[in-house]
Amino acid sequence: MDVKIIRQLEEIVGRENVLTSIENRIAYSYDATPTFASLPDAIVIPQTPEQISRILKLANEENFIVVPRGSGTSLSGGVVPLPNSIVLLMNRWRKILEIDRENLTALVEPGVITAHLHQEVEKYGLFYPPDPGSMTISTIGGNVAENAGGLRGLKYGVTKNYVLGLEVVLPTGEIINVGGKNVKDVAGYNLKDVLIGSEGTLGIFTKILLKLIPKPQSYKTMIAFFNSLSDAGKTVADIIASHIMPATLEFLDNTTIKCVEDYAHLGLPVNAGALLLIEVDGHPAQVEEEAEKIEKICIKNGATDYKIAKSESEALNLKTARRAAFAALARVKPTTILEDATVPRSFIPEMVEKIQQIANKYQIIIGNFGHAGDGNLHPTALTDERDKEEMKRVEQAFEEIFDYAIKLGGTITGEHGVGLAKKRFLEKQFSNAAIDFMKNIKRVLDPNNILNAGKIFDLKPRCEGRLPTAREEIEKYKGLWV
Amino acid sequence: MDVKIIRQLEEIVGRENVLTSIENRIAYSYDATPTFASLPDAIVIPQTPEQISRILKLANEENFIVVPRGSGTSLSGGVVPLPNSIVLLMNRWRKILEIDRENLTALVEPGVITAHLHQEVEKYGLFYPPDPGSMTISTIGGNVAENAGGLRGLKYGVTKNYVLGLEVVLPTGEIINVGGKNVKDVAGYNLKDVLIGSEGTLGIFTKILLKLIPKPQSYKTMIAFFNSLSDAGKTVADIIASHIMPATLEFLDNTTIKCVEDYAHLGLPVNAGALLLIEVDGHPAQVEEEAEKIEKICIKNGATDYKIAKSESEALNLKTARRAAFAALARVKPTTILEDATVPRSFIPEMVEKIQQIANKYQIIIGNFGHAGDGNLHPTALTDERDKEEMKRVEQAFEEIFDYAIKLGGTITGEHGVGLAKKRFLEKQFSNAAIDFMKNIKRVLDPNNILNAGKIFDLKPRCEGRLPTAREEIEKYKGLWV
Repeated sequence: MDVKIIRQLEEIVGRENVLTSIENRIAYSYDATPTFASLPDAIVIPQTPEQISRILKLANEENFIVVPRGSGTSLSGGVVPLPNSIVLLMNRWRKILEIDRENLTALVEPGVITAHLHQEVEKYGLFYPPDPGSMTISTIGGNVAENAGGLRGLKYGVTKNYVLGLEVVLPTGEIINVGGKNVKDVAGYNLKDVLIGSEGTLGIFTKILLKLIPKPQSYKTMIAFFNSLSDAGKTVADIIASHIMPATLEFLDNTTIKCVEDYAHLGLPVNAGALLLIEVDGHPAQVEEEAEKIEKICIKNGATDYKIAKSESEALNLKTARRAAFAALARVKPTTILEDATVPRSFIPEMVEKIQQIANKYQIIIGNFGHAGDGNLHPTALTDERDKEEMKRVEQAFEEIFDYAIKLGGTITGEHGVGLAKKRFLEKQFSNAAIDFMKNIKRVLDPNNILNAGKIFDLKPRCEGRLPTAREEIEKYKGLWV
Repeated sequence: MDVKIIRQLEEIVGRENVLTSIENRIAYSYDATPTFASLPDAIVIPQTPEQISRILKLANEENFIVVPRGSGTSLSGGVVPLPNSIVLLMNRWRKILEIDRENLTALVEPGVITAHLHQEVEKYGLFYPPDPGSMTISTIGGNVAENAGGLRGLKYGVTKNYVLGLEVVLPTGEIINVGGKNVKDVAGYNLKDVLIGSEGTLGIFTKILLKLIPKPQSYKTMIAFFNSLSDAGKTVADIIASHIMPATLEFLDNTTIKCVEDYAHLGLPVNAGALLLIEVDGHPAQVEEEAEKIEKICIKNGATDYKIAKSESEALNLKTARRAAFAALARVKPTTILEDATVPRSFIPEMVEKIQQIANKYQIIIGNFGHAGDGNLHPTALTDERDKEEMKRVEQAFEEIFDYAIKLGGTITGEHGVGLAKKRFLEKQFSNAAIDFMKNIKRVLDPNNILNAGKIFDLKPRCEGRLPTAREEIEKYKGLWV
C-alpha cells in the first residue's frame, strides 16, 4: 500500500492507531477458519463514526478494501483480509450506552462482548437470548454482521430477532440510522434487516439498539443418552410434536461424546450413540410439567440414561458437555473444520445418517453435534491441512454434505455465514435471479466494491460450468500467504 | 390503455380474467383509505406465477403500472391505482397448501384470509399470532406486503416475525424463492425481509411459508377503567416494569369509549377517561399469577372499575369493545381518518396528551385508541371530506402529530405503511442517505418503475423546500378521479 495512503489514514485516526508492523499484520491475517489467511496492509483503529466515514471515502478514492473486524471469531473466513486490504478494528468500541428498563432495550457499541451484555442486562432481570458458541469473546457488532445464532435459537430466535436499530456507516461514507425503539415500524423499506447478516459487506455498525425480554423465572436442564442417533432424533420430533419448545435442544454424536469425555472428564458414557442436552425455561409450574413430559418421551424412545440437574452448578456441568464439544474435537487432530449445514428439523435423522455415510465413504473422521431443535448441525472434520490428499477428501465430503442439505430444503450455512469459505456453494443454493438480486444490492450500495470485497460472492459474471474449489480460491492469492 | 395491450393481457390470463367495464374499474379504484381514488385501466386475475411473470414482462415492454391487490384493506392508499395502471387481483389464491406439524410451518397462497388461517392451524393446537384489525377480510399476501401488525404484537411480534419463506415474482418477471423451513439460515443477503413490508413495490408473492407456534394453553382477559389516560399510561408502564408481557395491552380514550357504547351497548361507563383491555396467555399457573399482579397494579393506579372474564364468551365481549372501536368511530361523521403514529412505549402518555392538545388547537374531533403495549396509537379524526376547510385543519393536525412522533423517536407508521397517504412524511423521518438507499433498491429491482409505482416515494430527485400536501398530491391526478 502506498505510504501516502498510510499517512492519510494516520491523519484521520492518529498515528498510534495505524498498525503496519509485520507482527501486527500477521496477527490480523486470519480468523477462526482453518486454511484461510492473507496479510492486510495495515490495521486501523477508528474512534468515531466520522473517522470511519472518512476512511471509507478514502478507500473509494484510492481503491483499497476495508475489512471490518471485531474479535475475529468468524468460521467462514469472513474477516480474512484479501490483497489490497486494511483491517478496521472495532473491538475497542466496548461501551454499553444505555439499558432502557421502560422500553426494554439496550444501546451498545459494536465491540461489546456478547457474554458481557448478558451479565449486565441480567442484573436488571432482563435477558438477551442470542448465545453463539463464541459468546465469551465474540462482539455484538460481529454477531449482527453474521446474524449469529446459538443454543437458544429454537425458542428465542437468532440475533436479527433482537436488533431494533442501527447506526451504520454505508460503504460510500454516509452515516444513517435505521430502526428505533418502536416495537412496530413499517415506514419505508426494511433496510435494517438487509444490513443484519450482510457479513461486513454493506455497512459498518457504530451503534446497535437491541431488544431485551424479561428473564425467564426458572429453568431445568436435562441430559439423556441413547444407543443411536436415530433414537435421539425420534425424541426431538416427539418433544416438538407435544408442543414443548425447549430453550435448548442439543445433540452430540458418539465421536463427540468420546472426545468431550477425554477432554473434560465429566463421566459421560463413552459408548452412548448420542447425547441430548435439553433445557426448558419459563414459569416454574410450566417448567416442572415440561420436564416431566420430556423425561417420559426420552424413556419411551429408549434413553439408556437420563439426568436432571438439581442445582445451578449441576446444570452448568451438564451444559459443559455441549459447550466443550468444539474445543474437545479440536484436540484430536491439527485441523478442525467446523461446518453448519442446516436442514428443516424433521430431516435431522436423515441428514445425520447421511453425514456418517459420507464420512465413511471418504474415510475421514467427522464428529457431529449441534442444535437438534432447529436443524442446525455442526459436522466437524478432524484432519490435518498439511495432508493434501486427506484435505481433498474432506473437501469432497463437505461438497456432498452441502449438496444433500440443499436437496432436503436446507441451507449451506445456518450460523457461520458465507464469507470466503462457502462462496462456491452459494450458487448451488440460489437461482441466478436471486444471486443477481444480492449482487445488485451490493453494487448500488458499494459501487467501487471497497467494503469487505470478495466475501459472499464475487462481483464478476457467474462462471459457467465447474465451480472453483476452496483450494483453487486460496491458490489465487498464493503469493500473499503468510 | 391501448386495446392491443388489453388483448395481450387476455391472451395471458384468458378473456374472462380481464375486467374492463366501468363498474369493475370503479370497484377497484379505491381501498380503505378515505380521499384517495383513481380508476385502473383494467383488472387482471392471474392463475399462475408464470402468468404473473408474463404480465410483468409486458408491463416493462409497454410501460404500464401493475398494482397487486388482495382484499384492498389498505389504510395508506397502498392499492389505489395511479393513472396508467392495471390492478392484479390476487384474492382468489386461497389455498392452504400444507400445514407441517413436524416443522411447525404453513405453506399458503397469498389470497388466504388471515382469520381463516388462524382457524385452520388452531385445529392442530397451533397458533399464527399476527391479528391485524382487518383479519376477517385481509389476505396473508397483503399482510406480508404491509408487514401487518395487530393486537398481539407486544408479546408475539408482527407478520415479518412469522414469514419463513417466499416464492416471489420480481418486477422484471423472474420467479425466485427466498428462505425456507430452516429456523437458522444465513446464506447470502436477507432478501426475504426486504421484500416483506415493501408494499407491493418490489415483488408479487405467489407462495408464503409461515412459522407457527404451539397455541398457548390458556388465557385470561381483563378490562380496567380509569379516570384519566395518564392513570392508564402509568398502569401500562408498571405492568411492563414488573416483567409481564401481556399478549394484548390495548387502550381506548373517552371519545372512543362513548362511540363504542353508543354503537355496541356493552354497558361501558361512558364517563371513564380511559379503558385498558389486557390479555395474558401461557401456562395456567403463570396466567393466574400475572392476572393477579395486573389487578393489583390497576387498582394501585386508581382503576375505577376492573373486570376479569369468567368464560370465553365474556372474554369475547370484553374484546368487542376494542375490536369495534374503528367501526364505532366511523359512524359519527362521514369521513374517518385512521392513523398509526407510533412511539416508544414509554412516551405513550406524553404522545396521547399531545394529540389531545393538537385536536383542541385545530378544533377537530380525534378519537384515540390502539396498542398501548407497543406504542402504536390510532388517532382517528372524525370529519367530512366535503368540508374543505375542516379537512385542511385535519391535515394540519396530523402533520403536527407525525412531527411530534418523529421528535420522540417514533415513526409515522407502525402498521399501515406509507403508500400514497404518507409519502410526504417519509422524508421527515429519514435522512437523504437512507431514502436514497431505499430508492436505489427500488431502481435496481424495478428499472422501469412498473410495480406499484408512485407508492412509498417518487423516484424523482427530492424536492427542495416545502413538501406537497396530501391535497396537492391528490390534485395532481384530478382529471382521473371518480
